[in-house]
Amino acid sequence: MTHAVVLAGGWGERLWPMSTRSCPKQLLRLVAGEPLVRATLRRIAPVAPSKSAIVLTGAAIREAIAAELSGVPQERIIGEPVGRNTAPAIALAAHLLVAEDPDAVMVVLPADHVVSDEAAFCAAVDLAVRAAVAVRGLVTLGIRPTRPETEYGYMRVGRESTVGGVHEVEAFTEKPDAATAESFLAGGRHLWNSGMFVWRADRFLDEVGERLPDVSAALAAVPRRPCDAGFDDAVRRYYEAVPSVSVDYGVMEKAENVLVVPAGFGWDDVGSWCALERVWDDGTGAGSVVRGDAVLVDAERCIVYADGGVAAVVGLSDVIVAHTKDATLVCPKARARDVRRVVEELKRRGVIEP
Amino acid sequence: MTHAVVLAGGWGERLWPMSTRSCPKQLLRLVAGEPLVRATLRRIAPVAPSKSAIVLTGAAIREAIAAELSGVPQERIIGEPVGRNTAPAIALAAHLLVAEDPDAVMVVLPADHVVSDEAAFCAAVDLAVRAAVAVRGLVTLGIRPTRPETEYGYMRVGRESTVGGVHEVEAFTEKPDAATAESFLAGGRHLWNSGMFVWRADRFLDEVGERLPDVSAALAAVPRRPCDAGFDDAVRRYYEAVPSVSVDYGVMEKAENVLVVPAGFGWDDVGSWCALERVWDDGTGAGSVVRGDAVLVDAERCIVYADGGVAAVVGLSDVIVAHTKDATLVCPKARARDVRRVVEELKRRGVIEP
Repeated sequence: MTHAVVLAGGWGERLWPMSTRSCPKQLLRLVAGEPLVRATLRRIAPVAPSKSAIVLTGAAIREAIAAELSGVPQERIIGEPVGRNTAPAIALAAHLLVAEDPDAVMVVLPADHVVSDEAAFCAAVDLAVRAAVAVRGLVTLGIRPTRPETEYGYMRVGRESTVGGVHEVEAFTEKPDAATAESFLAGGRHLWNSGMFVWRADRFLDEVGERLPDVSAALAAVPRRPCDAGFDDAVRRYYEAVPSVSVDYGVMEKAENVLVVPAGFGWDDVGSWCALERVWDDGTGAGSVVRGDAVLVDAERCIVYADGGVAAVVGLSDVIVAHTKDATLVCPKARARDVRRVVEELKRRGVIEP
Repeated sequence: MTHAVVLAGGWGERLWPMSTRSCPKQLLRLVAGEPLVRATLRRIAPVAPSKSAIVLTGAAIREAIAAELSGVPQERIIGEPVGRNTAPAIALAAHLLVAEDPDAVMVVLPADHVVSDEAAFCAAVDLAVRAAVAVRGLVTLGIRPTRPETEYGYMRVGRESTVGGVHEVEAFTEKPDAATAESFLAGGRHLWNSGMFVWRADRFLDEVGERLPDVSAALAAVPRRPCDAGFDDAVRRYYEAVPSVSVDYGVMEKAENVLVVPAGFGWDDVGSWCALERVWDDGTGAGSVVRGDAVLVDAERCIVYADGGVAAVVGLSDVIVAHTKDATLVCPKARARDVRRVVEELKRRGVIEP
């Protein structure tokens, strides 16, 4: 059976102050009035129903996430006491799924992405599931690059596997420099690593045993079912014990039989304020995208967000302006990644919890 | 006797959103933690005590103004049902003062200015009072220009009057163009019209009778004392009847015997966001002035205000950034006067009352 494993931790720091610790990106209704995490489960439902999904999220926002996911049984929404990146979370989900279904196939999905053609998305996942079952591949969904993005991981696509339409991955490159990203874009042989993965749970646990023995060892102490006695305490100890490591670095870059399904759907990870230009429409006629009450006077190509008040922009171009009750952000679009520096400073001051 | 007449109407639109209809500029604690209106009355107290002052303000904010002015008798704080600019307000004050003191001298003071040398301020007012009494002059306090400001009125200074240190005013120029303002600044013969005036109340009423007969006629129906029966209703009818006209245009520019005392004190009308660079200190070391919680990343020479939250500015120079719970303003310093256009648009939308 195919199970959705939804990664709903973190809070989307680079979208501060729209995104906050208490109302993180995956709960924002960025598109079509629906929280991203709910859209994620709805989108995969034709392939993997919500009732057999596993959702991993931060303990502090677990209740808020659960409130949006009525179709997912409460005990299958797991609150992480500390974030340890993706590999330990996916390993925990695999551990639980194998116990209930030795042939379980996992579809690992970040909770905060936007996908535009949902039928094509399901078709791509179906193909990935076939490859995960037929050749026990570790299958990624790859996105054709549309810009020389330096914040993403890239995969070089190799020859077609024995499953038609599914290719081998020859190499991973994480966050290339600008020139390399340009060459990947021009060359046509690279895809973005979307962070969406499909594999058999047992295959993944074998990889974890081989490549992340600390994780594997810690996992042995976790009961096989969420309803088992002591499960919550065991999960807490597990997260405290394991290292923080991404599945890309910890598993994928070292594994054999890594495959990719080139995506036929529109995709955005809404990774920074600039993504909103792609996700939102221009409502101003002057190249600006606006959400909420905004007043633009001689302002062009801006990204303006106002929640609970008015954002007024006079005589500026190509800037991000965000207003919430608690904060204002002003930043040129070209500096969007430096929103991180603001968040770091606010953590240092204790305004945002570290 | 010398009476303070404090003009505390309006709300400082060009300081939006720091200044709002409900918390207007004259109530802001811009300097030394003291509301500007309270500082105005404290500053003039050595010359004209609060208990004999008259304060004119908007009816909607009358209670808030009164709460800050415990030294001024309640009935002497008059709420204007509609704003009619300065001439009708000053005429009403003169009407009341003449009734209680035929020799009353009025010191007319806007409630929203910043003065830095208070002893020099009182000395200048003293001199102006002497001229108002000795030669029945209409005396202004003139400020030596420090920049080619195009938003102010200018006065050309003539020969010294028979009162030493007090000069005749040869001409008024309201809001000159940039080239004219530059020539006034360079020529050394012009002073800014501060909007602070000193004259005998009876002299002023004579001028009103001659130059603003509509105001004079409407005034005749207003009782002579605030405690008289029907006073409030009469004031309401007065404001509804009179035209909106400034004292500069309606009286000063046409009157004889207009004099000026060149000020020996530091003065600022805090007329726009840019004034805060003069009134506040640079606390960042990068040429920016900041009030409230701000995070500046590669931001230089900015004016940043945060009330009830954080204002974060990344990679911008020479901009005004203001955050309140209800609004964000972002505007280059060079466009500060266009804050008006934002306020106009918000009035049009009904967000701000017209």
